[in-house]
Amino acid sequence: MRFIAEIDVMPKKEILDPQGKAVTGSMKNVGLAEITNVRIGKHITLELVADSKEQAAEKVDAACKKLLANLIMESYVFELAAV
Amino acid sequence: MRFIAEIDVMPKKEILDPQGKAVTGSMKNVGLAEITNVRIGKHITLELVADSKEQAAEKVDAACKKLLANLIMESYVFELAAV
Repeated sequence: MRFIAEIDVMPKKEILDPQGKAVTGSMKNVGLAEITNVRIGKHITLELVADSKEQAAEKVDAACKKLLANLIMESYVFELAAV
Repeated sequence: MRFIAEIDVMPKKEILDPQGKAVTGSMKNVGLAEITNVRIGKHITLELVADSKEQAAEKVDAACKKLLANLIMESYVFELAAV
């Protein structure tokens, strides 16, 4: 079976996000001062082949832990869809 | 009303994504060769105040167009939730 995974990797809440802070500040300059608390992470899509949705979830979880997310500073969530 | 927006900004399909290509290549090295076609974009969360969900959507759309996405190379989608 073929799956598509959509993964969000975000800086943890207690970690300062300098990129997000800079963008929050810039919102004022483009007339959108009502936008606050911008946080910026990564959105990752990937395809994989697995025997079942459970096996696919294990593989995506392994990919996040080994390669896609830095678990000290980032947390991740993902969704899987069969295609 | 207070809203939280979740925005995905991704490189357009026809644009080469060198970061994603590099990560796809690295999947082999961590024993996950069945993962292919990795594409990497940004996931952005932000808070805003607006009178209605329609007005909030307009503001988030403006933020994407003016600041968060480069429309030549990237496309974006977002979801809004009242809090």
